[in-house]
Amino acid sequence: MTMNPLYFTAGPAATYPTVGKHLAQALQDQIPSISHRSNQFRSIYQDTFEGLKELFDLPAGFGVFFLGSATEIWERLLQNCVEEAGFHLVNGAFSKKFYDFAHLLHKKAFKQEVPFGQGFLPENINVHYKAEIIAFTQNETSSGVATPVETIHQIKEQNPGRLVVVDAVSSAPYPIFDFTKIDSMFFSVQKAFGLPAGLGVWIANEKCLAKSELLESKGMLTGAYTKLTSLWKFFEKFETPATPNVLGIYLLNKVVKDMLAVGKDEIRQDTDLKAIMLYDYLRESELFDVFVENPAHQSNTVIVANTRKPAKPIIDALAKKGFIIGSGYEKSREQIRIANFPATSVEQMESLIEAMQDLEEQGTGNRGQGTFII
Amino acid sequence: MTMNPLYFTAGPAATYPTVGKHLAQALQDQIPSISHRSNQFRSIYQDTFEGLKELFDLPAGFGVFFLGSATEIWERLLQNCVEEAGFHLVNGAFSKKFYDFAHLLHKKAFKQEVPFGQGFLPENINVHYKAEIIAFTQNETSSGVATPVETIHQIKEQNPGRLVVVDAVSSAPYPIFDFTKIDSMFFSVQKAFGLPAGLGVWIANEKCLAKSELLESKGMLTGAYTKLTSLWKFFEKFETPATPNVLGIYLLNKVVKDMLAVGKDEIRQDTDLKAIMLYDYLRESELFDVFVENPAHQSNTVIVANTRKPAKPIIDALAKKGFIIGSGYEKSREQIRIANFPATSVEQMESLIEAMQDLEEQGTGNRGQGTFII
Repeated sequence: MTMNPLYFTAGPAATYPTVGKHLAQALQDQIPSISHRSNQFRSIYQDTFEGLKELFDLPAGFGVFFLGSATEIWERLLQNCVEEAGFHLVNGAFSKKFYDFAHLLHKKAFKQEVPFGQGFLPENINVHYKAEIIAFTQNETSSGVATPVETIHQIKEQNPGRLVVVDAVSSAPYPIFDFTKIDSMFFSVQKAFGLPAGLGVWIANEKCLAKSELLESKGMLTGAYTKLTSLWKFFEKFETPATPNVLGIYLLNKVVKDMLAVGKDEIRQDTDLKAIMLYDYLRESELFDVFVENPAHQSNTVIVANTRKPAKPIIDALAKKGFIIGSGYEKSREQIRIANFPATSVEQMESLIEAMQDLEEQGTGNRGQGTFII
Repeated sequence: MTMNPLYFTAGPAATYPTVGKHLAQALQDQIPSISHRSNQFRSIYQDTFEGLKELFDLPAGFGVFFLGSATEIWERLLQNCVEEAGFHLVNGAFSKKFYDFAHLLHKKAFKQEVPFGQGFLPENINVHYKAEIIAFTQNETSSGVATPVETIHQIKEQNPGRLVVVDAVSSAPYPIFDFTKIDSMFFSVQKAFGLPAGLGVWIANEKCLAKSELLESKGMLTGAYTKLTSLWKFFEKFETPATPNVLGIYLLNKVVKDMLAVGKDEIRQDTDLKAIMLYDYLRESELFDVFVENPAHQSNTVIVANTRKPAKPIIDALAKKGFIIGSGYEKSREQIRIANFPATSVEQMESLIEAMQDLEEQGTGNRGQGTFII
């Protein structure tokens, strides 16, 4: 086992390489002690907003809000953007949880569901006529199924009067969304941004705000400090209603700037390259099979494979070699999950694939070392 | 201006001296990358629970839950512990906000209010007959008024059937609560624990859980993942319903252990000593007056003084000398606020007092340096 294992887990995940440096600087500059009502904080918020605006090509009319997690954002979004009913595209554990949240919050919710491992084709999506929002989980962390952004954009074109909201927790900033065809997108920072957990980022446009205002005017419960009208009012002066995770926002700002310095196209190309390498290996492997059958739905950021032998000894053996990968989300399946986030380099992905190849050869007896039984 | 100013602000506040060391260790051990469903995380949660249990002398039957902030806990507590109406003791901005939250969450709330700078005497507290909870803000961060723990305990003795809930945001772990006479207490870590913001700690007993179960059984909205029944179910296996601020919990655990190593009595005695030094100086000063008149209500952790000259130049001059203190919460008042948390040493408090004395002498012309005009 190496001293510093490499994390290929889908969240919490490997930290972005510059995080240690920024954390040291933050401590030196006493960022944890600054007031969230100071110019110093407002400038960090504004900087982060500008950075995210550039990274995501956000048009005017979008606000960026900081909450505790993407899970919290599910709740805040449903409270603020759904009066009666939403429509959820469910194809795994997390899209299902988002849908369940609606019921827990006493909203109506309709779903269209496909089996685990499958995605949605735009021609098959039948939006419920009562739906005020259409909720996509763009990247299903549980199954490794991604919804092509074109599908999301097309559904918005067909439903201009409905809010299209996108959970991009385990993919942002990889997918190139057209924010003129999306009303809200959100993520948490411990996935593809490679930051410590404890911060959710909610991006929403003025249509979401208008909906929230409408609900509030009808006397509906949209939240206390976290109602969108309150978040937005404070956002306009780059403040938050309550003390936020200031250090988390500071680190997000730094990593977004680092990503922009590398280049957003470069980061996406790197992700593509690493995904191709891994999928190519999995397809050729005798130990693994790519789980998601439709190539158009294979996620490039969370890659899931079936194992032809029990998954746990494989995962354990890789851990002993210093590679931490994820188990399958559904315990009944023999699967592995491998995150492919910007924090991981091409070289690191190569070394993981080599380790998997070694394991395969050992396991099939080609090397006859006999120390590893799978 | 010194390179590293000393923060005496009431939150975010100065970091506990060991935070840098623990953060470096956390990075080395890749704590931000560990799964919140791993044994490693469960052991951090359990350790933190055991540490807080010792620090607060928690009896059996209490759970400890991690949320994003104390502000979020106001919401979660009201949703889970109030069916119809609560009773709030209001004596400043934060106790007022807690009360306001009830209305924002569509609950009834009654309040007993005293003027800014005053506290509550037990014989004057008239709990509303409809109140299911009695909400104390034990330390009013806005005014520097503390409610003696005996008052809280006495009110619980008189109201055994009501839940007594205590906001100890800017005082815990200083007050010695008797948790057989308190049903819930909560705080955020960026105050007296000297940690980065982004984590709220909610301590609640089985009576709170039972209340939450009752509300749920009646079909009331108690939350999605943050409903107490869900938090408690996960707490029993030392997990959280969603990915929490793992790094924040790790740091809290370390700082709680550091505090226990120093000794909880020692930390409280240190706080007393620093408070006496500061109050003594303020009482003798010709520039400042202690704001809270009743000595029994003078907070030892957030100390507020009126200034006899405009407050802003005083605060600015101290900042130039390397001491960051807080302004008054109510902008119409000429006040300063000084936090007295465990992160600050006796020597640092001495140096602040010396800087204030210097300023006073300069300002009154005793030293005739003429560079500082207040």
